[in-house]
Amino acid sequence: MKNFDIHRPDEAIRSSIIDKIDNLTKPKGSLGRLEELALQIGMIQQTLSPELRKPCNILFAADHGIEREGVTVSPREVTWQQLGHFARGGAGINFLCDQHGFRLVLVDAGVDYDIPSGHGIIDLKMGRGTGNFLHEPAMSLEEWEECIIRGAGVVDMVHADGCNVVSFGEMGSGNTSPSSMWMHLLTGISLRDCVGAGAGLDNPGVSHKLDVLQRSLDNYTGSDSLEEKLAWFGGYELAMAVGAMLRAAELKMIVIVDGFIMTACMAAAARFCPEVLDYAVFGHQGDESGHKLMLAAIGAKPLLLLGLRLGEGSGAVCAYPILQSAVNMINQMDSFAKVAVTKYF
Amino acid sequence: MKNFDIHRPDEAIRSSIIDKIDNLTKPKGSLGRLEELALQIGMIQQTLSPELRKPCNILFAADHGIEREGVTVSPREVTWQQLGHFARGGAGINFLCDQHGFRLVLVDAGVDYDIPSGHGIIDLKMGRGTGNFLHEPAMSLEEWEECIIRGAGVVDMVHADGCNVVSFGEMGSGNTSPSSMWMHLLTGISLRDCVGAGAGLDNPGVSHKLDVLQRSLDNYTGSDSLEEKLAWFGGYELAMAVGAMLRAAELKMIVIVDGFIMTACMAAAARFCPEVLDYAVFGHQGDESGHKLMLAAIGAKPLLLLGLRLGEGSGAVCAYPILQSAVNMINQMDSFAKVAVTKYF
Repeated sequence: MKNFDIHRPDEAIRSSIIDKIDNLTKPKGSLGRLEELALQIGMIQQTLSPELRKPCNILFAADHGIEREGVTVSPREVTWQQLGHFARGGAGINFLCDQHGFRLVLVDAGVDYDIPSGHGIIDLKMGRGTGNFLHEPAMSLEEWEECIIRGAGVVDMVHADGCNVVSFGEMGSGNTSPSSMWMHLLTGISLRDCVGAGAGLDNPGVSHKLDVLQRSLDNYTGSDSLEEKLAWFGGYELAMAVGAMLRAAELKMIVIVDGFIMTACMAAAARFCPEVLDYAVFGHQGDESGHKLMLAAIGAKPLLLLGLRLGEGSGAVCAYPILQSAVNMINQMDSFAKVAVTKYF
Repeated sequence: MKNFDIHRPDEAIRSSIIDKIDNLTKPKGSLGRLEELALQIGMIQQTLSPELRKPCNILFAADHGIEREGVTVSPREVTWQQLGHFARGGAGINFLCDQHGFRLVLVDAGVDYDIPSGHGIIDLKMGRGTGNFLHEPAMSLEEWEECIIRGAGVVDMVHADGCNVVSFGEMGSGNTSPSSMWMHLLTGISLRDCVGAGAGLDNPGVSHKLDVLQRSLDNYTGSDSLEEKLAWFGGYELAMAVGAMLRAAELKMIVIVDGFIMTACMAAAARFCPEVLDYAVFGHQGDESGHKLMLAAIGAKPLLLLGLRLGEGSGAVCAYPILQSAVNMINQMDSFAKVAVTKYF
């Protein structure tokens, strides 16, 4: 796979950042996660005065062969319909991007529809949906590699425009299924605990989904290579997100991670380059049952717990004001040295 | 006590609001708490198109006789120093109010210092700190009543200016002690479970605080009247916040509740008028140990869990973008009827 040269932030500046945070006019530690975030962002940017610039939500859309097996309540045509809906505005991710000043970048990673041009949707289509991994690989290793490169390229584009904080979203009917497979492969957690209701399956629906995924696993005839397994059970939008996350960390950007599906992508990225996690902020813990377990498995602490399960990057964008608060805290609060307040701790 | 004429929102509109939310272009329920909030705000405002106008954070500051017993690491002078600091900008609550467009209204409810005029701090001073409730009532019933009226008056002022969403904050060295007493009196939870570290006590400090508060309870010689007990163990800023919350609900404003101390005030307000809870949004669960228990005791679900324990209204203001997202969702998202997306649930 393409090599990403990701470095952990230089530790030399850590004590200076902590010192600045501890001397702001508040009881030490009393701003909790804001203080942790300010430290993380300061480390990423190697500065005592960090800045969030031109936030972007890059949304990868694609279809999935496994959707043919009845593993989702959301029919295939919803993928292209929603992608067009995002382009026109009026969907969930639109009001959140508008509220928080995010640029929304839409990518056709492999939607089963001829998306008309002229709507600002970036055409990186790998095919009209993946193969059905119950019977065949979702994609070849060559396609996997190409997805990684294309995903990284989208990040290059927004970075060149001045963006230093990015979230990723997805749209793809059936895409909690590849995500559950990845979660199982990456964490070793039993497949049962990796499978949930997705967009709204009832209990028999979840049982059927688990059965389909278990049989898919049993039918696997590839090698022991993690890359081959991720490709086999993957999705075009998932693979592009992995490449995008790795490239963003290489460029020292802050990566806000959305819900279940994007957490699976971050877990995959971290298996190739564990250093990517230094750049990751986990926006929320969603309602998909496995999400909490997967976050715990990779040691991630989500910022929000709002019961979201929309995808599209919504939970990541929703968490953005918390990052902004952390940055405002370290930049705008006075220190005890500056003002006449007794430091009592 | 002054009567507040608080009505539960009229139920007639509920089904129309739910219908609107359920037909937005997303899987039903997939925006979780945003959907619940949109319903609550729509009910309060009795509209399918709610609006948040001129948000204010009203911060009541006062000193406490019990502070003389060594129940806090924060010395008394910090109360007036911080109040002055808020007026100049540069404190925790300032950057949060700036970020989210809040007007910050500062009230001297009873600070032990002659606050110079000209800093925009509203002078509603009841005295230079309360009595030490280890030995005497913190305040008389007449003072309690006066605090309720003065607190309500501040809300009248911001309401007249067009504000329809308000949070309350506090500053007062030692004020987790009266809050713990209130929590115990209002919920029946053991005093031990109501007492925490406040601004930063160590374990022996917390034990000493518990001992002082237990002896204060033992020394109580008043009647069985809840009002008399709340006055006896209260604080001027707490009592004003109770009056302010009740008046805000009477005026059908949204009340965003901050941390441990303001939750104790809302719990008190709810004992006088349970309907006040229909207007309350709980901004966050703080780090003070009893906060989670108290929230559960009054059936409140906090929006944020960020380990904050600053007070000042910080957790309430920090949660504001979530309310704004809920309002944007119901106003800005398209319905399935409007756009060509298959409704699949």
